[in-house]
Amino acid sequence: MNQSSDKNAVVLLSGGLDSATVLAIANDRGYRCHALSVDYGQRHRSELLAAQNIADTMSAVLKTVNLDLRTFGGSALTDDIDVPTEESTGIPVTYVPARNTIMLSLALAWAEVLGADAIFIGVNAVDYSGYPDCRPEFINAYEEMANLATKAGVIGNRLTIHTPLIDLSKADIIREGTKLGVDYSMTVSCYQADEQGRACGACDSCRIRAAGFDAAGVSDPTRYK
Amino acid sequence: MNQSSDKNAVVLLSGGLDSATVLAIANDRGYRCHALSVDYGQRHRSELLAAQNIADTMSAVLKTVNLDLRTFGGSALTDDIDVPTEESTGIPVTYVPARNTIMLSLALAWAEVLGADAIFIGVNAVDYSGYPDCRPEFINAYEEMANLATKAGVIGNRLTIHTPLIDLSKADIIREGTKLGVDYSMTVSCYQADEQGRACGACDSCRIRAAGFDAAGVSDPTRYK
Repeated sequence: MNQSSDKNAVVLLSGGLDSATVLAIANDRGYRCHALSVDYGQRHRSELLAAQNIADTMSAVLKTVNLDLRTFGGSALTDDIDVPTEESTGIPVTYVPARNTIMLSLALAWAEVLGADAIFIGVNAVDYSGYPDCRPEFINAYEEMANLATKAGVIGNRLTIHTPLIDLSKADIIREGTKLGVDYSMTVSCYQADEQGRACGACDSCRIRAAGFDAAGVSDPTRYK
Repeated sequence: MNQSSDKNAVVLLSGGLDSATVLAIANDRGYRCHALSVDYGQRHRSELLAAQNIADTMSAVLKTVNLDLRTFGGSALTDDIDVPTEESTGIPVTYVPARNTIMLSLALAWAEVLGADAIFIGVNAVDYSGYPDCRPEFINAYEEMANLATKAGVIGNRLTIHTPLIDLSKADIIREGTKLGVDYSMTVSCYQADEQGRACGACDSCRIRAAGFDAAGVSDPTRYK
């Protein structure tokens, strides 16, 4: 067993509220955190800068991988489709095809190189906006696959996908992060934030976030346009 | 069910012998083929040009995604590690961490956008050089995961990962491709091919390929340095 692997984790960090909380949790659990951010051509560019600021604050190494998912299109976040400002039913157009599958695969590559046996991702099955790749059964299947995909799996080092937010409401997440000292004013959740990271206040993500602060009884530090 | 999905397939095309054969097989099975090539910073750049030429010959649409896996390093194909020219035991240094997991994830994203229910990949469990992500158990686990990851999975359209080469020897693959009219002189298998696509003749990949042509009784069209 690789001695350096014991406490290394790769943490997917988008720059949003959820993943910032996950990084704080992984830190709190004693992992040396390697934050991974993906520039996939998202409209909300300011979240990439937010990811860097958050990683710096929590003393995590950050790598940003360039992978232009606009090559495939098919989402309001990466294609010329308007971000909806009304609540919708079913899987929304902001769903990016195979996004979490791709993000986890990049994290897996880095975890294998580092000899890390933990990947943290901020998926959430409660306020998950109807995305199929935020469900626990998806995560479980991914972990099984990942342990067959890698050298570590072949030699018997089990990799675990940690989803500390999966059963939490947005309010629970905000309470947990607040307890751990996360500065949520640095995070960007809005699907169409401006260059300064200011939120629209109208998209799905903004609505869920604002309701979360309200339910948690925590003052909302979000900067709105 | 999406009417246009019936006969669409995404085919991972590296520009090598195996994936060119897979594209010919998918074509032969009546699929409208969408070839996907990944520029992951590989040393053997000429395989990307080979992929384009092969796709053109077989009338497949080709998309090339840029994803620089040198961000993570850890392989002789993407890092400053020499490509070995002697046979090795165990998992070789030319293994790229999580490569097939990442490639399949990109194919999955495109398949979802297209409404395609088939992905073809040229993995091979016989001459697989000891790569964990070429084993049937990995592919099966990937397919399970993929069907939980996507909108198609949620609404009940089953996606299948096709691995037509998985049980074939290199000689069998070459015989099959030759029957289907694949021009193997266009393919690049060498891990350190030069800019003109000429092979070293010494690396694992070259040795397996040359032995395959020999065993198949097919004249080897490979251009060597």
